[in-house]
Amino acid sequence: MTAASGWGILKAALSARFAMHTIAPSTRLRPSPFHEATLAEGVRGFTVYNHMLMPTDYGDPVGEYQRLLNGVALWDVAVERQVQLAGPDAGRLAQILTPRDLSTLGAGEGRYVALCDHAGTLINDPVLLKLADDRFWLSIADSDALFWARAIAAERGLEVDVSEPDVSPLAVQGPQAEAVVAALFGDWVRGLKRFRFKETAIDGIPVVVARSGWSKQGGFEIYLMDGSRGRALWDLVREAGRPWDIGPGSPNAVERVESGLLSWGGDTDARTNPFEVRLGRFVDLDVPDDVVGIAALRRIAARGPARHQLGVLLEGDEPTPPPIRWREIVKDGLPIGHQTNGVWSYRLRRNIGFALVSVTATPGDDVEVLVDGARIPGRLAELPFL
Amino acid sequence: MTAASGWGILKAALSARFAMHTIAPSTRLRPSPFHEATLAEGVRGFTVYNHMLMPTDYGDPVGEYQRLLNGVALWDVAVERQVQLAGPDAGRLAQILTPRDLSTLGAGEGRYVALCDHAGTLINDPVLLKLADDRFWLSIADSDALFWARAIAAERGLEVDVSEPDVSPLAVQGPQAEAVVAALFGDWVRGLKRFRFKETAIDGIPVVVARSGWSKQGGFEIYLMDGSRGRALWDLVREAGRPWDIGPGSPNAVERVESGLLSWGGDTDARTNPFEVRLGRFVDLDVPDDVVGIAALRRIAARGPARHQLGVLLEGDEPTPPPIRWREIVKDGLPIGHQTNGVWSYRLRRNIGFALVSVTATPGDDVEVLVDGARIPGRLAELPFL
Repeated sequence: MTAASGWGILKAALSARFAMHTIAPSTRLRPSPFHEATLAEGVRGFTVYNHMLMPTDYGDPVGEYQRLLNGVALWDVAVERQVQLAGPDAGRLAQILTPRDLSTLGAGEGRYVALCDHAGTLINDPVLLKLADDRFWLSIADSDALFWARAIAAERGLEVDVSEPDVSPLAVQGPQAEAVVAALFGDWVRGLKRFRFKETAIDGIPVVVARSGWSKQGGFEIYLMDGSRGRALWDLVREAGRPWDIGPGSPNAVERVESGLLSWGGDTDARTNPFEVRLGRFVDLDVPDDVVGIAALRRIAARGPARHQLGVLLEGDEPTPPPIRWREIVKDGLPIGHQTNGVWSYRLRRNIGFALVSVTATPGDDVEVLVDGARIPGRLAELPFL
Repeated sequence: MTAASGWGILKAALSARFAMHTIAPSTRLRPSPFHEATLAEGVRGFTVYNHMLMPTDYGDPVGEYQRLLNGVALWDVAVERQVQLAGPDAGRLAQILTPRDLSTLGAGEGRYVALCDHAGTLINDPVLLKLADDRFWLSIADSDALFWARAIAAERGLEVDVSEPDVSPLAVQGPQAEAVVAALFGDWVRGLKRFRFKETAIDGIPVVVARSGWSKQGGFEIYLMDGSRGRALWDLVREAGRPWDIGPGSPNAVERVESGLLSWGGDTDARTNPFEVRLGRFVDLDVPDDVVGIAALRRIAARGPARHQLGVLLEGDEPTPPPIRWREIVKDGLPIGHQTNGVWSYRLRRNIGFALVSVTATPGDDVEVLVDGARIPGRLAELPFL
């Protein structure tokens, strides 16, 4: 079966069940600075993330996937809002908010970090960017980390201003992304290491250019720092990318599952700690005692987490619709956890997903997954799949 | 022009611009316990609220509006999540979180409250329910008040557990709601005053029944306390409501604007304080000094807020599509604030909305509103409209 015919089946299943539901217009769901540009590109579907609309569909899912894997795609990811920490205690607050050691983080460097509450529960997983000793951005996942950071800052009496600046990332992703971004900004971008960034401007539009992005295909995020210039920046990148056949896309559900990238809120629940979802390597247990949640994380590390995150491959060679709820996973007749996402992998030609399961379950184990009332045989696997 | 023909125009304008966009299925956007029931009712559109899907459209907007105004409607409002405060310091935390005096709040009583940050900015506007001296629910608007409450509780060292319980409200709204709820639960519900509630059960389904709801047409909210029984509770209410021709609906954008009900996040921005949006009467300046934000609120009250919330009626007798961004309002050539929502009022036969404008502007003032590049004449008015 070709990827395209797989999509045909999936699309039929979807339209019968879910995809025809529309999203109601509201000022509560803010459009991004790139909204008009994405409308002009023919956007067909959105999700909501950080109280904003994010494009998810331009009507050609297979083409959008292939563009990400083989070419270069342009994504409106303005929903990755920035929580800015500014002032004399900005660095102190940044460290208090995350159990990852930041003592060696330099200006112009970013780091993927866990935010935990006092019980060690994961409440966001942003990229932290250090713009200066007294200015940081948390480029956040889908929870109100702004209020969280403000609460901690104010309760601790820190001298820091916590705000959401006018900053909206535009992602350029795929193996040809570097060529496009270099054509636009210059060859210096080729020397940027992962999560490193630089403040610059293009045609008078202030931006931060970072090697970053929610895919494993490589790429950059251009942080627009003037929301009135969204269309202009989009068009500049679009034009610069023409030789590489750039086109619109969005954070790609299929690629991110194949690549093992975590979606906070989708793959996590109200009691998930970093150790359960492969973020243990970003927890430094010897950070200072005033780091939120560190005492709880030390306890969890000492006894070991109850669950861990694996992959699961389902039997069958026809796509099933993506789940909207976690699916129970059963092993030897007993529930061991849940499948937390699900996609049809174009490369593996299988339905795959993440499994948040008891640590007693290991890769290679045969399991059953409850899919819409049916028990589908499956096998646990290491992440990433590819 | 009839309400129905007004809708025809609006629908045509909408489908050209927005309403055909679909929402992508994802485990990050949780369905409600009533999801399958609403699918069976023919739900057509959703919004996202508190990381969950909420039905907004069953394909008959005029019928849904008329049912709310003249009969009785059933709404899936499970997205009104509860933040539970439980433990010896639950009452103390509740008071710390809101500048409304709770000293006279009894068990079985609820109160509409403002949650503010330390700068006095409104970050949520829940209904607070006191279940017992040591157990409270905040029935929240669309922000992560769970994390906020946890941060404050932990930083202050309070002995209280802050959690999201398995509780999902189902609203029964409209002038016939009392008859339906009395038929189901008994005549005692007729004696419930606004925001009073009682824990009970129906067919073994544990619920809280409250006189409450996000409309001015009267009604109840039935808080389902067992998420596995959503379909059963929906069907019970549907069956009990049959003599009054009950039907599905959702929080109604038109009615709530006509009635002057605030939507946090839609009608507020990053610097809105309670005094600006008609919530000053819910701020008691003499609450204890440890209430979050009270010092800032006292300063704001002393100097007076910069903006206030009015209505605005636009010229023209044809519906315009609802805004997805705030619209600038101009008076005597100068910007004075924004129109924060917009609907076609079936009763007033006008496009109306809320205006968050300088306190120098008053009801009766002639203004201009920037609608998609055009300057539409309008007039400021008192809220509510009706």
